[in-house]
This record gives sequence, structure tokens and C-alpha cells, in this order.
Amino acid sequence: MGGDFAPRNVVQGALDCVRDPRCDFEILLVGQEDAIRAHLPAAVPANIHIRHTDEVVDMKDSVATALKTKKNSSMYRALEWHRDGEVQGFISAGNTGAMMALSTLILGRLPGVERPSIGTFLPSQKGPVLLIDAGANVDSKPSHLAQFGMMGSIYTELMMKRPSPKVGLLNVGEEESKGNDASIAAWPLLKAAPIHFIGNIEGRDILKGTADVVVCDGFTGNIILKFAESFPGLLKSKFYDYAAQGFVKKLWVGLIAGTIKKMIKDWDYQEYGGVPLLGVNGVSIIGHGSSTPRAITNMIFAAKHMVDRRVNETIREAMTSQQSTN
Amino acid sequence: MGGDFAPRNVVQGALDCVRDPRCDFEILLVGQEDAIRAHLPAAVPANIHIRHTDEVVDMKDSVATALKTKKNSSMYRALEWHRDGEVQGFISAGNTGAMMALSTLILGRLPGVERPSIGTFLPSQKGPVLLIDAGANVDSKPSHLAQFGMMGSIYTELMMKRPSPKVGLLNVGEEESKGNDASIAAWPLLKAAPIHFIGNIEGRDILKGTADVVVCDGFTGNIILKFAESFPGLLKSKFYDYAAQGFVKKLWVGLIAGTIKKMIKDWDYQEYGGVPLLGVNGVSIIGHGSSTPRAITNMIFAAKHMVDRRVNETIREAMTSQQSTN
Repeated sequence: MGGDFAPRNVVQGALDCVRDPRCDFEILLVGQEDAIRAHLPAAVPANIHIRHTDEVVDMKDSVATALKTKKNSSMYRALEWHRDGEVQGFISAGNTGAMMALSTLILGRLPGVERPSIGTFLPSQKGPVLLIDAGANVDSKPSHLAQFGMMGSIYTELMMKRPSPKVGLLNVGEEESKGNDASIAAWPLLKAAPIHFIGNIEGRDILKGTADVVVCDGFTGNIILKFAESFPGLLKSKFYDYAAQGFVKKLWVGLIAGTIKKMIKDWDYQEYGGVPLLGVNGVSIIGHGSSTPRAITNMIFAAKHMVDRRVNETIREAMTSQQSTN
Repeated sequence: MGGDFAPRNVVQGALDCVRDPRCDFEILLVGQEDAIRAHLPAAVPANIHIRHTDEVVDMKDSVATALKTKKNSSMYRALEWHRDGEVQGFISAGNTGAMMALSTLILGRLPGVERPSIGTFLPSQKGPVLLIDAGANVDSKPSHLAQFGMMGSIYTELMMKRPSPKVGLLNVGEEESKGNDASIAAWPLLKAAPIHFIGNIEGRDILKGTADVVVCDGFTGNIILKFAESFPGLLKSKFYDYAAQGFVKKLWVGLIAGTIKKMIKDWDYQEYGGVPLLGVNGVSIIGHGSSTPRAITNMIFAAKHMVDRRVNETIREAMTSQQSTN
């Protein structure tokens, strides 16, 4: 029921998913049954199931409202069914704050994880790089940053099939001594972690692809992510300004419009679908409120991959052996 | 003597400056006289003067080295002459860390300013917006953020001739209650300051031009600035990748190469020249190490404008009346 185009886009994404030959799993649609059925064919595919819930977490609901007064919402109930083992993963295009809070509360954290965090891929000259934390937290302690590095490394290795990914700490200088208090204290923790830590990287290194995993606090990560998402808008506006300068220029821009669109498509979150909340004891994929059916389909497959590739089990093992080392 | 192409580019920039009909001032070149004269014509223009200094702050020198062991460097001596009133402004393409430390130490801070900060313009859909602090500090207290807002507002108003500029606090959400500890505490201070504070803005608002002045701590600002500077590199690399896909695509990209270059030129720091260290009791403009003669010329004019438009006097008055209000 979550998202700006719910349940239509969510249901359509699920339908597209089960029609994909790669789909070897079943989908449980949770929400108001009538609203869901309105977007399904009369003959519902055999691997789509529906379970009715009354309430809906609104996009504008506060976390407190979602937590305390909407225990029969689709989000709350679906997460409980995930916790209870009825489903192996959960995706939603709904209220992000509520998703993070309810996922953490209901699923719990993996042992040793202090703060669940959001990992999101950004484009770079060498392919996608994972930015973690992209906004699940605001103030991050050094130990949180070190855990973001470990979880991000495992997620990138297993999901992108990139062995021993390079992990960089986003900072204002390359030297170990540079940075704010949190990043200076995080450096030795990341150095000691069982990851391929390449040290500090700077803002300019993100899009160069210097690191496969970019570790930062959620405040910086959220700002970087939203800043990056706004690049295409500026680019388009520059092209329009240019086209407005005359007929010939308009013609050029018209001719290359498709090219430009294709080239900035990398920035499109829908290519990746959603972002995982890493560190919770379950698979929780958060989608953009305006997720298209295609984004939903990708999110469902991402959840399936997280299960198949044992992301959480690997994080659990790494955190446990890290704790026994300390 | 500072910068990757010193003194050649610096001297050339000064020559270009005095040849500009707008130049109604004199330039003092400070450094090793022989090296400077090698790039000047035999008949030195009447409004260019040279003063010899022996030492040079190297690009790799630590701040401590520059401070303690290079008191006869061009940077150290020029700042002393600025402090003593022999010159009204100072520019350098040299070691940024040393520039900030020596400027603060030798010139001192304006009354009421706790932390000098760097303001830099970024492109937006509505023209340049000032990002402050862009990296002079790492950990910023709420009172520092409020002062960045005041100094940035005055600088933008006077230098860009934009009356009552809109000041936004860079944050992870629009609501007053959102953010990390520092930004939550800075909100009421900015609200109470004698500026046009529009509240929190998000990463996506920077390039939209929602605010004329974007206030953030120097850690976030430095990362955002360097991230933005790397954007043209990714764009070029995407175009090359596209062109490599075949002759027709290569042709398209070739045809639009000029257009693209023109459109990403906005990102070029050389258009703006250098960045001011705001809050010191003087005019100190910091240039990129690789500054071209054109960037140097722009930096000299920027210093002149800062003097003419009474930026420091205005900051001093605002800080003083703010203090007496508190």
C-alpha cells in the first residue's frame, strides 16, 4: 500500500516479476484486498498471493504514528510475517522513515550491529559504487562507520559479484590524520576490520570509482545522494537554456536528446530499484515513493538475491568473528 | 611563489590584470625576484611592483612548517604587509592549509567571528550559489554555522549584487527538527540572525538554486565541493564510452562536443577564480594550485571588489550589532 502510486505500481511490478522466466519464487501482496485485486487479472497467477490488512501507513505519517497506532498496517503486519518466517524478504515503496524504524523494531538487528544503515549504488567511471550510510542515521560514531564498511563490503561482494571490494572512508584529505573527530577515530577501526580498506578518499574520488564501497555518516551520505540525484536536472536545464538560444541550437539538442537521456540514465535509481536496510535481521528493501513497476520488479529480485546469496548470514558471521577477536 | 605553475601563471595573471582597462590599482608581486622578473617584460608596467623574499612555502609543507620555519616566505611576509596596511588584499595559488592558517594567525579574526570559513560558488539552475563552509573547518559548532550564514549572506549580497539573499541550512530534511545535533541547534540561531533564513534545504536543492547561500559544516562542504568538481569527468567519460560504441555515435558526440564543453564550463572554478577566506581581518583569496593566468586575474579583481564593496566592514558591523543584541 506504500508509495505515491500504490497499489497500482506495486501490483504491476509483482505481475511483471512472476511473468519473468527468472522468477522461481512466490509473492505475497499485503494490503487492502479490494484495492489490490482491482489491479490484478481475474485469474490471479498461481505464484501471487494476497493477504488483507486494514490500515495503511501514510507517506506523511510520523514514525511514532506508524509504530504506535498502525499495528494492523500492511507494513507492520508484513514485517511481522517476515520475522515469523512466513516470507523471506520484504519490499515497500512506502514511508522511508517508518520502513527503517519498523524494520529495526520488528526484525531486530543482526548480532553486533549497532546501527542498521542504507547502502545505495551511485554511478562511477568504473561502474556502480556503494555509498553507505546513505541516510538511515544522522550522527555516526566511529564504531558505526567501521560496521558500515564491513556490511557494505559484504553486500557489494555478494550482490555485485566483486571479490574483495575496495572500501574507502569518505573524508576531506587522504592522510590518516585528516577529518572530523568521527572519521579520524574510525580510520584505525576500518584498518583493523576484515575488509580491503584503502584509507581515506575525497569527494572527487566517488565518481572516479576509486573505491567500490564509500563509507560515510548518514548525514553526509544523504546529502551526497540527493545532490547526485539532482545532477540530471541541472544538465537538462542547461540543455534547455542552450536550445533556447536559437533554432540551430534547438536542432542540435533535439538530435542528441536521446543520447543525453541514455547517458544520464545511470543516475536513475529505478535501474537499481530500491536500497537495502543492512544490519537488520531480515531482508528489507526500501523503494522510492514514486517507484515504477520496473523499480518494484527490480526490488523483488534484489530481495531474492539477498536471500540466495546469504548476505545476512555472511554479515552475521563477520560480526561474530569480529567480536570474538576484539 | 605558490601553486603548481608559479611564478609563471601568477606573473602572467598580474600582467593581464594591469592591461585590463578596469585595473585602477597597483599590484605587488612578492617572491624570489629573479624568478618573477624572468616572466616580466624588461619594461615592467608602472603599476606592478616587486618585493623580494627568500623562502617559499612548498605545496607539501605542513601548516606547522609554514608557521614556524618559513617566516621569510612570500606567503608569510605578504600577509604581514597586508596586516600592516601596505597592501589592501592578498591572493595566492599556494598551499591552501598554510594560507588558511597564516591568514588567520597574521591577519587575525574579525571581532565576533569564531571560525573563518571558505565560501565558494557552485552552479545552479538559478545562477551561482554560495557554499559556506567549503572546507576551512572540519567540526563546526552551531554558533559557527550561524556565523557562516551571516558572512555568506553579506558576501553574496555585496559580491553578486543580490539583495537579501536566501540563506538555507544544508540538512537531511526540511523540518526544523531534522538533522544531526549541530544542525538542529544551528536552526534557531540562523532563524534569529539578521539574514533572510529560509530554513533547512536538502542536497537536491543546491543545484536547483533554492537558496542563494548554502550553510554547512566544512566537512560536508568540502566533500560536496569536490564531488561536484568531479562531475564533468564522469560526464566526459560517459560520452567517450558512448562514442566508442560505433561510428555514428562517435559522429554525434563529435558534433556536440563544443556544446557539452560550453555547458559544463559553469563547473570550472577558473571562471570564479579563487575562494575567499571570510572572517579574517583582511582580504585573503585562495586559488587552486593549478590556477591559470585567467584565474589569477579573476582572483585579483575579486580581492579588489571585496575591498571596494566593504565586505569586511559590513561583516564587522553585523557581528558587532549581533553581539550587542545577544
